[in-house]
Amino acid sequence: MKTVCLRLDFEVASDVRETIAKNLYWTDRRITDVDVSEHDHPTLTITCADDTDEDVLQAQVLADVRLMASQQAGFPVRTVYRHQSSRPYSLPEQQVYSELMARNWVSPELRGSFTFTGIMADLYYGLDRLFADLAKELGARNVYLPSLLDTKTLLKSSYLDDYAHLGNYVFHLHEDRSTLALIAAAHAESEDGLDLSRLPTSAANPEAVLSPAACQPFYPLLAGSALAERVLVTGYTRCYRYESGATRGLRRSREFGVREIILVGTGPEVTAFRQELLDLCRDLLERLDVGGELATASDPFFIDTAARYRMFQMSFDVKHEVRLDIHRGPAIAVASVNLHSDHFGKAWDIRQADGSAAHSCCMGFGIDRWCLAIFSQFGFAVRDWPRTLQEVVAG
Amino acid sequence: MKTVCLRLDFEVASDVRETIAKNLYWTDRRITDVDVSEHDHPTLTITCADDTDEDVLQAQVLADVRLMASQQAGFPVRTVYRHQSSRPYSLPEQQVYSELMARNWVSPELRGSFTFTGIMADLYYGLDRLFADLAKELGARNVYLPSLLDTKTLLKSSYLDDYAHLGNYVFHLHEDRSTLALIAAAHAESEDGLDLSRLPTSAANPEAVLSPAACQPFYPLLAGSALAERVLVTGYTRCYRYESGATRGLRRSREFGVREIILVGTGPEVTAFRQELLDLCRDLLERLDVGGELATASDPFFIDTAARYRMFQMSFDVKHEVRLDIHRGPAIAVASVNLHSDHFGKAWDIRQADGSAAHSCCMGFGIDRWCLAIFSQFGFAVRDWPRTLQEVVAG
Repeated sequence: MKTVCLRLDFEVASDVRETIAKNLYWTDRRITDVDVSEHDHPTLTITCADDTDEDVLQAQVLADVRLMASQQAGFPVRTVYRHQSSRPYSLPEQQVYSELMARNWVSPELRGSFTFTGIMADLYYGLDRLFADLAKELGARNVYLPSLLDTKTLLKSSYLDDYAHLGNYVFHLHEDRSTLALIAAAHAESEDGLDLSRLPTSAANPEAVLSPAACQPFYPLLAGSALAERVLVTGYTRCYRYESGATRGLRRSREFGVREIILVGTGPEVTAFRQELLDLCRDLLERLDVGGELATASDPFFIDTAARYRMFQMSFDVKHEVRLDIHRGPAIAVASVNLHSDHFGKAWDIRQADGSAAHSCCMGFGIDRWCLAIFSQFGFAVRDWPRTLQEVVAG
Repeated sequence: MKTVCLRLDFEVASDVRETIAKNLYWTDRRITDVDVSEHDHPTLTITCADDTDEDVLQAQVLADVRLMASQQAGFPVRTVYRHQSSRPYSLPEQQVYSELMARNWVSPELRGSFTFTGIMADLYYGLDRLFADLAKELGARNVYLPSLLDTKTLLKSSYLDDYAHLGNYVFHLHEDRSTLALIAAAHAESEDGLDLSRLPTSAANPEAVLSPAACQPFYPLLAGSALAERVLVTGYTRCYRYESGATRGLRRSREFGVREIILVGTGPEVTAFRQELLDLCRDLLERLDVGGELATASDPFFIDTAARYRMFQMSFDVKHEVRLDIHRGPAIAVASVNLHSDHFGKAWDIRQADGSAAHSCCMGFGIDRWCLAIFSQFGFAVRDWPRTLQEVVAG
């Protein structure tokens, strides 16, 4: 391993720094760690394999960083609402993890997936119940959303056009009764874990992919239909994204729980409901007395099609995020409200009563991240937490 | 495709017929469908690819069937308790699906994974809440169990020794910024779906496998520790098994929801708690007024190591199942209570206070199957359901 340092000679906003730290792993597979310092002119510290050509890497990194920065610069974040918590107590992110692990409340299973116990588990389930109740108050009906999706579902919605690299693909061993082959598969434990290289599998044409965004499997249900009235549902599901070296604790995990709200209807219905969701975000910050803000957001990547999609995103203020304060660190996005226009209506042939493509919007609460932010803001003594949050934990 | 028919000239009990129908797909990959008639001397109707040698296949199938039948014959099912529902109304399984699909309450996403809406979703979430409450009454604390497991977790617990073929393995695309490669991956839609055959991936050494049994990721949390007292937890998670051609609706799906209860402690603590779980099963049948039974069970496969494990299973009455009646069809196992002896204690070095390996047991409720059985027994008019079940749906 060696380290390449790069001081940027242009200004980079904090949301762009986060984008860089997240996406730069895709510049070159030999990059094993990316650190972006918290300065206006940040220093990038890149750890990479010994056989990396530093000059080539530097040039490539700089080109990608400039692209992301310029794309994002055109769309500055606009804060819609900010809530200052009345509680002064707060812990840095790293200390939260240390405490959670020491108490065995969070235990890593795999890089990016965890087992939770204690108050962490109580808070997790309690928040999902709270968000579900809020969704019901808005009129949402229950939906169960699967995590195991047909790859065709993500191809049809164009998700894989931009985000194939985030996919967690699923395959199986082909039916082969040779005991030896199966046992060999099971026993081939090595440094790298399981070795399936000599076995026939479905990996070249994986039939399934884990849901990267909770609402994706909902639209096929309405495919080919004309809606007599708007459809409003809520469900809990787990989502999965492969984030390479950017995978970090509860902030960016590979498996994460989502409470989702989805509306499909006419354009005006969607616009009106989006406002209800934004109001909900605001109410929630006040009600739980958590410090944070509601702001517009974008999700840039350095591949052309993603840039095009993001342009579309930002030009209509189509993505809002609730970002909670983390002591001495970057804020964390714990919920997002997304307008899809008629993207899914067109992809799945879902029509309004007048025959035109239906519109949709969704809201997702990232439950693991809510837990992280709450521990960071209020610490580990639940009796000192805001009363509403104490009730959430008590269940 | 061609069809091979085989009339068995020996008696085969109903649980053995189910085992045969489930496992025979692993005799030869060319088998695409297996039907076992509901007779004491059943006829097997096997659909297979045109290039199958019928004589070889027949011989192989007969050998495997004889092996499974003889293994299972030594361990007849013992009914512990039976409850007759006071409601006479009931629908055959196929009619339940037709109705669920017609109402859009169940919609297939992929073979073995579904989206649920309407009363199906209400019942699903309601049952999980009920089972969670029952677990809490027994003293269980919340646990969040991940679905994305390290392959090493299943190697260490020996799960993959017997059940590697059930695995849903997870891989990712290697970090490669070539836009073309990513886009090619996304767009390579064909008859077979996604084509990743030309892309560098982690499939040969998959780092993750989807949880095939809810309790598996819990034990690593306690690894290397000595328990001062018993540990009792409950959590909801989704489990995943690849069942080849045996995948069938809600009866045998590839993704299924589980409410799990796990106890780790001393031998006597586990034995006593197992009895509490068996009592719970009995109470539940009465309370919900669903027709079914509590019985001992085994889970044979035709690979030697599995046979050994099953011997161990049966010799201690270590597996009980709640099996609910399905109109004009085989009953369905909707919950199981499993004694593990010190299997996991030894695998993960979890010790009792006296230094010996800890014992464990678990109970899993298969929520999707409960829903299927309830619709089969009581139909679609919720107002006619047993009152307790109406409350479950109302939430």
